[in-house]
Amino acid sequence: EEMGFLSVKEGIRSVWEFCKEDTTRVVFAFKVGLAVLLVSLLILFRAPYEVFGASIIWSILTVAIMFEYTVGATFNRGFNRALGSLLAGILAIGVAQLALTAGRTAEPIIIGISIFLIGTVTSFMKQWPSLVPYEYGFRVILFTYCLIIVSGYRMGNPIRTSLDRLYSIAIGGIVAVLVNVLILPIWAGEQLHKELVSSFNAVADSLEECVRKYLEDDGSDYPEFSKTVMDEFPDEPAYRKCRSTLNSSAKIESLALAAKWEPPHGRFRHFFYPWSEYVKVGAVLRYCAYEVMALHGVLHSEIQAPYNLRITFQTEIQDATSQAAELVRSLGKDVSNMRRTLKTSLLKRVHISTERLQRAIDMHSYLLTSTYDPPDNPSRPLPKLSHTLSSNLSDFSTQLAELEKTTTPDQNSNPVSGALPPPVLPRAESYHEMMRKQSRRLHSWPSREVDAFEEEGGFEADFIPRMKALESTAALSLATFTSLLIEFVARLDHLVEAVEELSKMAKFKHEVL
Amino acid sequence: EEMGFLSVKEGIRSVWEFCKEDTTRVVFAFKVGLAVLLVSLLILFRAPYEVFGASIIWSILTVAIMFEYTVGATFNRGFNRALGSLLAGILAIGVAQLALTAGRTAEPIIIGISIFLIGTVTSFMKQWPSLVPYEYGFRVILFTYCLIIVSGYRMGNPIRTSLDRLYSIAIGGIVAVLVNVLILPIWAGEQLHKELVSSFNAVADSLEECVRKYLEDDGSDYPEFSKTVMDEFPDEPAYRKCRSTLNSSAKIESLALAAKWEPPHGRFRHFFYPWSEYVKVGAVLRYCAYEVMALHGVLHSEIQAPYNLRITFQTEIQDATSQAAELVRSLGKDVSNMRRTLKTSLLKRVHISTERLQRAIDMHSYLLTSTYDPPDNPSRPLPKLSHTLSSNLSDFSTQLAELEKTTTPDQNSNPVSGALPPPVLPRAESYHEMMRKQSRRLHSWPSREVDAFEEEGGFEADFIPRMKALESTAALSLATFTSLLIEFVARLDHLVEAVEELSKMAKFKHEVL
Repeated sequence: EEMGFLSVKEGIRSVWEFCKEDTTRVVFAFKVGLAVLLVSLLILFRAPYEVFGASIIWSILTVAIMFEYTVGATFNRGFNRALGSLLAGILAIGVAQLALTAGRTAEPIIIGISIFLIGTVTSFMKQWPSLVPYEYGFRVILFTYCLIIVSGYRMGNPIRTSLDRLYSIAIGGIVAVLVNVLILPIWAGEQLHKELVSSFNAVADSLEECVRKYLEDDGSDYPEFSKTVMDEFPDEPAYRKCRSTLNSSAKIESLALAAKWEPPHGRFRHFFYPWSEYVKVGAVLRYCAYEVMALHGVLHSEIQAPYNLRITFQTEIQDATSQAAELVRSLGKDVSNMRRTLKTSLLKRVHISTERLQRAIDMHSYLLTSTYDPPDNPSRPLPKLSHTLSSNLSDFSTQLAELEKTTTPDQNSNPVSGALPPPVLPRAESYHEMMRKQSRRLHSWPSREVDAFEEEGGFEADFIPRMKALESTAALSLATFTSLLIEFVARLDHLVEAVEELSKMAKFKHEVL
Repeated sequence: EEMGFLSVKEGIRSVWEFCKEDTTRVVFAFKVGLAVLLVSLLILFRAPYEVFGASIIWSILTVAIMFEYTVGATFNRGFNRALGSLLAGILAIGVAQLALTAGRTAEPIIIGISIFLIGTVTSFMKQWPSLVPYEYGFRVILFTYCLIIVSGYRMGNPIRTSLDRLYSIAIGGIVAVLVNVLILPIWAGEQLHKELVSSFNAVADSLEECVRKYLEDDGSDYPEFSKTVMDEFPDEPAYRKCRSTLNSSAKIESLALAAKWEPPHGRFRHFFYPWSEYVKVGAVLRYCAYEVMALHGVLHSEIQAPYNLRITFQTEIQDATSQAAELVRSLGKDVSNMRRTLKTSLLKRVHISTERLQRAIDMHSYLLTSTYDPPDNPSRPLPKLSHTLSSNLSDFSTQLAELEKTTTPDQNSNPVSGALPPPVLPRAESYHEMMRKQSRRLHSWPSREVDAFEEEGGFEADFIPRMKALESTAALSLATFTSLLIEFVARLDHLVEAVEELSKMAKFKHEVL
């Protein structure tokens, strides 16, 4: 019993959490209760019941079926219900009159055939792509038609029957709409607005999270990809949010569809508010999110650039990332506050930092085409190379010195550092230094030495790659990461454009800064 | 009038196309017509009408609301309808009895409060994540409860009212299910099966299409990305199919949910067929498709590797692509035919060709770190370089010679070719040759020439990059493309695993080859 009590307590707690997470859920539930209570009163009190008669129960059915979460969706359902009932009523009365004149025997046959035809035609039409959103309307036509014509046949006077029913349905619809609009309305437009803004933040967060993890990992504790491809990535909350953004297209579309039915309200004050632009911005944002997914793929792929290589470009990558994330967040904030600010300076800064990253990659591209020999190949004396390096250290360019600063903390944490290398350098250390040294050789191209070399070592090229294929392509994974980051930035132009278009059409306020 | 006639003709043609595309649409429409006709007959004929009375019209409502496209969805709706009605009936009878004993004044108050509570509680519960699929059931509980208790209050004898209604609903439900199952049934399982198989083909097709376009384009007529990011890509039908695969997760999930309600049928002969595994395989496939989207992004990005660079790796890229696409198609075919074949040899071939691609990239990674000087810098004599190349051509390794074969057709189509270069080589040509030459220098590392150079040109590194940043990162875009391709292949392992898991759980037949 103790256990039972505890699990009940547990259950109540989770229900409480669920309510606190989004209080509109509770509001919605109470609104439905109120709406059905109101229509029930029409029957529970004697006066209205005597006016409308037994068919008033249709108003209850209407409320239960029509009451949707948002105002727009309720309007949409109401429209479907009203138009469907009206069309079905007109059709039914017409066919009933026709069947009546056809005589006693022919009447049920005509009615039967008409029911079959209506069933077939409405079911066919509701599959037509442009009519799919009105699926419910076709259902209403079908059952309303059947109900009116059949009960008219059995009880006589189909016009009276259908009119009574239309009254009841109208009453139910009006109650549903009034309760939905007047008592704490839940606007689809508002929900769509919030959803889009949170998508902006999700993309920005997951980009930063992904890059942070890429740079912070020391390469030793990569989880196997096989374990994580379909994983929930519990330590990457932003990634999960971004992933759910990718699957939110259906939700955004249905919210936009509902929002179109809503009258001007709250912050969305003018008629024909461009809700479909939200869908477009959402789509461009999703295209940016695809790049984040690809970055995430590189982060968790098995082939990884060594940590010291990744850390070499840390400043540039972090700079480009934070600029890009800031731009995305600022766009989201603009949409959220419905204002319109010039994004030129932010965009320019993103471009500059991305160009800096491109330049850094370009300048150190030798690092990516590793011709590094693993230490288990003893024929090449690593210490000697390091020695030549240390003696030439003063020659280094300013930019390389800057990079040095970034990597210094890391080197300090390593006991092996400084100008005097030990007999055998740790692999990571020497690799980094070595590459830096090799850079100057690359940049000297073309020089006489090359031609001189060609005669002596031309054939070697064929034998070397086989033993270090992985090492080299591992370094290229950094190039992939940065390329994807650059591609992400390239797509931001389109995102800025799409938000600009939305701001224009939605008449967002110009902000004077 | 002529115009009107033409557009009618046009309309009929498009309706005809729509039917031909998927004939089950027409079948479904006729089935609905038949089902409503059948229940109508219960009223149109005197005998059944006299047995069931006026409440038989509820069977029509039930058919119209319950009849869904697939068998599983109909069962699901039927279950919701039945259980909802039953619960509502029991509740209503209980509350009505209680209200009756409470006396004349208290009765409507108790009924009103109960309606409010039922409305609130059901509307709250249907928002609970695990109960969302039963949304319709909660709606049924709400309106059935209201109808029974209210009409019981006004017309007396709630038990009689609710039993009559339950009979009618049961009859409607039975007719709907029988028509749905017995006449040309449309199984959700079958649809899910087909949907998944076609997703496999869409991913394979779009991968091949993307790579083909990447290799065939001569780099001159790239459409601006700004025009194409949200474009329909009319010349890339497979890409559009793949993109729709990305958005099909909701469809697959709802089909799987429906399929679980279906009895063993057709090819899916055993109980508890693992439909949820289809959702998992679909998710892994979607993760592969994300890589295709990223590849597509590289294909249409503004920064492009030069054509001759892309064509250098043509054989390897094409080989890896066609192997990967073949594996994906073969997995799709296995699922389609419900057989289980060993994928080891295919997977091994994919790995081998991917490794070959990795090796090729590694061997020619110098090409990606372009230190190429544009021809508008006249200080570096390009012709001289080409000359040294042609004189050393015989030294080339076998692998390089192989690569030569691939590029030869292209060179033949170019009037400028052969061993005697013109005074100024076209940029594309010389670039390619030059890089090949430089390769040998890189592979000779470390050699004495490097040390000798260091003293004379160490500072130059700082000034060069600025003017050719784009050129170099452009070449890296090829590295990105291949890395994404390799990542795609890496994800195939998981796809094979997921399909294997599905085959095991669904007891696919072992194929003896």
